[in-house]
Amino acid sequence: MKLAMIEHGGRTSPAVCTDDSAFDLQRALPCAAEAAREAFGANALPSMLDLIAAGERALRFLRAVLDDPGRFAAARAPLAAVRLLAPIPRPPKNVFCLGRNYAEHIREDNVSRDQATALPEVPQFFTKPWTAIVGPEAGIRYDQRVTRRLDYEVELAVVIGRGGRDIAEEQAMDHVFGYTIVNDVSARDLQKRHDQWFKGKALDTFCPMGPWIVTADEIADPHALRIELGVNGQPRQDASTAQMIFPIARQIASLSAGLTLEPGDVIATGTPSGVGYAMNPRQWLQAGDEIVCRIEKIGTLRNRVVAAG
Amino acid sequence: MKLAMIEHGGRTSPAVCTDDSAFDLQRALPCAAEAAREAFGANALPSMLDLIAAGERALRFLRAVLDDPGRFAAARAPLAAVRLLAPIPRPPKNVFCLGRNYAEHIREDNVSRDQATALPEVPQFFTKPWTAIVGPEAGIRYDQRVTRRLDYEVELAVVIGRGGRDIAEEQAMDHVFGYTIVNDVSARDLQKRHDQWFKGKALDTFCPMGPWIVTADEIADPHALRIELGVNGQPRQDASTAQMIFPIARQIASLSAGLTLEPGDVIATGTPSGVGYAMNPRQWLQAGDEIVCRIEKIGTLRNRVVAAG
Repeated sequence: MKLAMIEHGGRTSPAVCTDDSAFDLQRALPCAAEAAREAFGANALPSMLDLIAAGERALRFLRAVLDDPGRFAAARAPLAAVRLLAPIPRPPKNVFCLGRNYAEHIREDNVSRDQATALPEVPQFFTKPWTAIVGPEAGIRYDQRVTRRLDYEVELAVVIGRGGRDIAEEQAMDHVFGYTIVNDVSARDLQKRHDQWFKGKALDTFCPMGPWIVTADEIADPHALRIELGVNGQPRQDASTAQMIFPIARQIASLSAGLTLEPGDVIATGTPSGVGYAMNPRQWLQAGDEIVCRIEKIGTLRNRVVAAG
Repeated sequence: MKLAMIEHGGRTSPAVCTDDSAFDLQRALPCAAEAAREAFGANALPSMLDLIAAGERALRFLRAVLDDPGRFAAARAPLAAVRLLAPIPRPPKNVFCLGRNYAEHIREDNVSRDQATALPEVPQFFTKPWTAIVGPEAGIRYDQRVTRRLDYEVELAVVIGRGGRDIAEEQAMDHVFGYTIVNDVSARDLQKRHDQWFKGKALDTFCPMGPWIVTADEIADPHALRIELGVNGQPRQDASTAQMIFPIARQIASLSAGLTLEPGDVIATGTPSGVGYAMNPRQWLQAGDEIVCRIEKIGTLRNRVVAAG
């Protein structure tokens, strides 16, 4: 199933989407009050985080909506008529991100900087705050007083369902609620100057996310997905999630060692090769550029760079 | 004023403290309903974040409580009878932290690692998630399956009052609500192995915070405070906040460039020299160790290391 945050008629709500329709969840609840109560308890207007925390009970309700669309007609809107927002506008913690998780990206980085960094032996984590998250079609702020080296990174993002600490690698995939796309927008000059990557990754609008969450049951193998990014129609990144150095289960095990993950936490799993700073000559994003991220079985996340300041 | 989160009689509430009393804010409100409405509007039971966001209006109410304690007797408890919790248990974002902000600490690090790292030219930021935050007297988990190199770092923590982006250094101190103490507990093996510092800094209980927030008006110069840490009564860190490389105003300006700060965001401003990994021989924290952080004009933050697993 595809779960989106939608804006429609001046309201925002979680929704379950088909190819042409969005069913506004808050409007769907009164159409099946008993089933809704069973799924969400007293929580009359569940947020996306409530929905993720409710897990299988919530998914049963959403399947009931899709199985009997006539009953939920009052909640239906044409997909083309709603605005898609970031599916998780405010995760419980900063978005977790991996650096250097595709060997080919590490090689292009080494060539670009004339260095010979070995492949990492464990995942490298950093974070992006919720204030960086924006949805599909939202602008990416480019403020030349803050950075002159704006770059992109398409990433498969994992949404945690059941939380936990010290999650074993063998059980880790049971903790995945679903998947979405994140563009790990980066200010390369800040990333380098501030030594730790956080500052260059954390600016407002630097975490486009969407277009929706595809639930884990629909993606049998998250390590067999084509992952692409283009700028103004020009292909830049084109790889497979099969090329990750640390598969998702190992990321979750490593991250959760001693650290409690919660429903709705998001892990951006690293970017493949093809980023702007490793091109020859280096290519930086400019105001007006259109960036299209695409991951097989998930969808398309499109954003435009907007001059600020 | 000293603002604390207290637990008392099975409830938690923000409180304003004197040397011997805590006035439970949620119980104080009905004692002066009109003044409370003026301070907090419809928000009948303000959280600490509500209180910080309300700013001067909230502070006026708290001053009224302290000025007329008899009127608020129903809200008073002996300070010794309440349990102090972390004053901001869940900031809007991960806690922002600075690395390498005291020259003497960078020197001890260089000696320890036989390197010659120059002083940073801009602040180095990383983060700790809210799940790491614990209060005074809470245990610091030491799980030997996760780390064998547990270390401490006492830090002056700044609480943001008025939010904003692109805050000028000249105006930055107007955005400070107050100050507290953070112990930036660190797993040195993870910090090094994962390259980016986040993982080694982010484990559950790795961010003791407290004992309360001292409002900015009580600390004329936050760069003239003695800052100390002891382990089992043995002095380890003893410095002055005057020794910071990047003063607080510059930290806020650097951090907020392109990044929106919110009321209740917390910045841990770096640690002075004297950490365990730079001692000769190196000293790691052990289960049972008592760590006492102390900053002049703020107070004492005491925690004990507890074996886990």
